[in-house]
Amino acid sequence: MLIVGELINSSRKPIKAAIDAQDTEEIQKIAKDQHDHGADFIDVNAGTFVGKESEYMQWLIKTVQESVSSPCCIDSPDPKVVETALSVHQGTPMVNSISLEKARYEALLPVIAGTDIKVIALCMSDKGMPETKDDRVAIAEDLINSLVKNNVPIENIYVDPLVQPISTNDSYGMEFMDAIEAIMTGFPGVHTICGLSNISYGLPERKLINQAFVVMAIAKKLDSAIINPLDKRMMANIIAAETLAGKDEYCSNYLTAYREERLKL
Amino acid sequence: MLIVGELINSSRKPIKAAIDAQDTEEIQKIAKDQHDHGADFIDVNAGTFVGKESEYMQWLIKTVQESVSSPCCIDSPDPKVVETALSVHQGTPMVNSISLEKARYEALLPVIAGTDIKVIALCMSDKGMPETKDDRVAIAEDLINSLVKNNVPIENIYVDPLVQPISTNDSYGMEFMDAIEAIMTGFPGVHTICGLSNISYGLPERKLINQAFVVMAIAKKLDSAIINPLDKRMMANIIAAETLAGKDEYCSNYLTAYREERLKL
Repeated sequence: MLIVGELINSSRKPIKAAIDAQDTEEIQKIAKDQHDHGADFIDVNAGTFVGKESEYMQWLIKTVQESVSSPCCIDSPDPKVVETALSVHQGTPMVNSISLEKARYEALLPVIAGTDIKVIALCMSDKGMPETKDDRVAIAEDLINSLVKNNVPIENIYVDPLVQPISTNDSYGMEFMDAIEAIMTGFPGVHTICGLSNISYGLPERKLINQAFVVMAIAKKLDSAIINPLDKRMMANIIAAETLAGKDEYCSNYLTAYREERLKL
Repeated sequence: MLIVGELINSSRKPIKAAIDAQDTEEIQKIAKDQHDHGADFIDVNAGTFVGKESEYMQWLIKTVQESVSSPCCIDSPDPKVVETALSVHQGTPMVNSISLEKARYEALLPVIAGTDIKVIALCMSDKGMPETKDDRVAIAEDLINSLVKNNVPIENIYVDPLVQPISTNDSYGMEFMDAIEAIMTGFPGVHTICGLSNISYGLPERKLINQAFVVMAIAKKLDSAIINPLDKRMMANIIAAETLAGKDEYCSNYLTAYREERLKL
């Protein structure tokens, strides 16, 4: 499972404050904590700073990369912000995200075409959010085919079918999970990814829902997630689920996690 | 989710002791605890008492039924024991279990044919334990077709594809889960059930594995389980997973469980 650590996001109050104060130590501590708990990429988002997003994004990337070896996941819907972010990033980042929305797609495609950059492909089009599995798979198909045609290797594409809250429609959980399975089965080599927390919006005990959801999605072949790696039970659930999904030869990853007390909850 | 409470099993030391001592109070306490925590059926097993299994099974059923309204799940591989158990059971029980093993099948079939009894159909034949999804589905198909032909309504059949330990083969989790999905999709009206704990045999932190496994199996359409209903996190996971699987209109079961503090872990 590829883990993107979600914590360095300016929509979270302590992060907004740390960015405002240019608090290098605080940002580096959170980056290091996430890295040490298993994050493969560190998401960086400065989206709440209108007019200063590019500047702060560059600062975040430099700050994070001074402290950890994990590359960043550059999280902005604005292709211009992504481009300036890429100019300071060392190594191969992930970009969060491209979509089928025409303006976003056309502006971001030249930035990633022919590179090694990993890209999250949101199942969103100018028609809005998809409702059903079939809507999601149709958008995914267009995105994958078009990206591959433009020299983005399929192995670098992380399709996010977009989670919607189960509290607004009973079927949103299965529509999402069935989309994951259809995309993973239908496009060999592609990855799937998602931010989880939207699924539990409007319900109590959200962690319980989020933790169960990631485990169910792994049963349906999800292979990447944008999560809080400091949530010990979430990480333990992912390790157990991957073992059960047959992705852990001789249960060796599970047993290593046990010895390192990462399963002690 | 139909829940069979697994605790009253003579292979567990305190239960063996309580049966030995004919300790009515202890058995009734465990029956009531399981009922109060959501068990739809109370499993009763006296299998360790060779020569006395029938007598003790009858005592267990009478003892349990004096204290709770949940019917019993009569748990014995011996058709004679099942038959004497049925003679004292009030209401409609579940029988655990029939299989495709010839002797067992032929002896138990006349006992359940044409009745309202619910029956667990183990995916086991005289060739032994199935290894793959396809082996399981083939046995399930034979069992379902034959039972239905003999006037066992498909709605009363609970297919158990048999869990084998993930520690012995990386693929055993997915072979089981894919069998669940194929059976539920291929035979509308049938149910699937399983005892979970075998999946984690030989591994540490077995509860973590068992809890993740049931959630994954629900994503693959499992609709019944033989578990310990006193395991609060297991029950909370099941409630969350069923909500996410679209089986909880308006999340009302989840919200009720929350109000009753059953999600407080």
